[in-house]
Amino acid sequence: MCQTAHSHADFVGPQRNRRALVIFSGGQDSTTCLLQAIADYGQQQVEAISFYYGQRHAIELEKAQWIANDLGIKQTVIDTSVIKQVTNNALMDESQVIQPAHVTSSNPSSAANQASQYPNTFVDGRNALFLLLAGSYAKSQGIHDIIMGVCETDFSGYPDCRDRFIKSMNVTMDLSMDYAFNVKTPLMYLTKAETWALADQLGYLEYVKQHTHTCYYGVEGGCGQCPSCLLRDKGLNEYLQSKEAK
Amino acid sequence: MCQTAHSHADFVGPQRNRRALVIFSGGQDSTTCLLQAIADYGQQQVEAISFYYGQRHAIELEKAQWIANDLGIKQTVIDTSVIKQVTNNALMDESQVIQPAHVTSSNPSSAANQASQYPNTFVDGRNALFLLLAGSYAKSQGIHDIIMGVCETDFSGYPDCRDRFIKSMNVTMDLSMDYAFNVKTPLMYLTKAETWALADQLGYLEYVKQHTHTCYYGVEGGCGQCPSCLLRDKGLNEYLQSKEAK
Repeated sequence: MCQTAHSHADFVGPQRNRRALVIFSGGQDSTTCLLQAIADYGQQQVEAISFYYGQRHAIELEKAQWIANDLGIKQTVIDTSVIKQVTNNALMDESQVIQPAHVTSSNPSSAANQASQYPNTFVDGRNALFLLLAGSYAKSQGIHDIIMGVCETDFSGYPDCRDRFIKSMNVTMDLSMDYAFNVKTPLMYLTKAETWALADQLGYLEYVKQHTHTCYYGVEGGCGQCPSCLLRDKGLNEYLQSKEAK
Repeated sequence: MCQTAHSHADFVGPQRNRRALVIFSGGQDSTTCLLQAIADYGQQQVEAISFYYGQRHAIELEKAQWIANDLGIKQTVIDTSVIKQVTNNALMDESQVIQPAHVTSSNPSSAANQASQYPNTFVDGRNALFLLLAGSYAKSQGIHDIIMGVCETDFSGYPDCRDRFIKSMNVTMDLSMDYAFNVKTPLMYLTKAETWALADQLGYLEYVKQHTHTCYYGVEGGCGQCPSCLLRDKGLNEYLQSKEAK
């Protein structure tokens, strides 16, 4: 099956003269980004940075640490629970029920959520915070390339997953630190099925399927019911069907 | 002396239909911004947000709390020590000596500082972090206007004090949270002498002189020796001389 880079330790891909920092949650998307970065830059040239901010389930971070260790990638874990001080939402608050978009939040203290068309799993400013801290860390290490698995085609419609935000953030980070950042989002215009196809091309379809964690409720192997599990399963089925049809 | 708004509790200025969040350190610049905001928006329409990130001296935060309380302004204090996890520098590290610009850092672990033309008091990404967290908080409170006392004419040359950074950050925050922020920097093109003149116009020259804290070394009343004290004293002397000459 494997015709790709991951089995050749001395292979380095087209970006072999650069280094990359991957924003890594241990989910399907960022794991696929990490695997692609290893193929493109070479394992020794890649680092991962993970953010812990009071998610409902520590399993996500545990999975991320297991994968980084398994792939031999240096991982830096940053506690960003500061974000809880300025905002609140269902991903961090056990008392809230996760709701899809267009359903208003039940939390009366959150005026912004009540008026929002976004699902109540949205953390205002989250991806900006992750990119900013990743940028500070990257600069301290002399790294310019930052890779993030955000995706416009994701069902969620979060504003900070859109390409226009990422490009504006890239310029803002440059101006903030007077340093040439190169923020890359290889999944931006891929469907979930195409992201599964990418993992397969890299020789890691089974690996991603078995080891990544995407469930909002933190169920090992996925609950199969939450928006995140549904999206993941639907994409996988679509990809496997299209593969069989070839 | 006083012909200005601060003695008239029911006065509200030209921004009376809006609310403002002032990023407030308790120093000369942000205190002047807070006083101007009270004059423009009315005391009831203004909030302050202060960031604690492991500064050398807690006196700065104590002064900020005293001033906010004295002026009757709601203050939110946010612990942003997360920034210590991704970068390090003289403002947070007792082992480093504060050095002016163009002198390289003595900290061998900081490749970025060693190669930088900035003074080693620069925290990469600091103002972006402050604005981002202020933005998340402001949105949660339904506030659109954020006021920050950064200044291009400051001696330091920090990139994240420049107008181009602030405007780019404003757009990025909008795109990040899908919310219309209005980041205002009333001191951007003022000299220190002109900032003292503004405090005087607001009827608060003596107040700012007595109650604000700017010294890098945390000396009560100022050490008179550090770059911050020198800049403050020089500006005050310039303003007082120009005032006497009139």
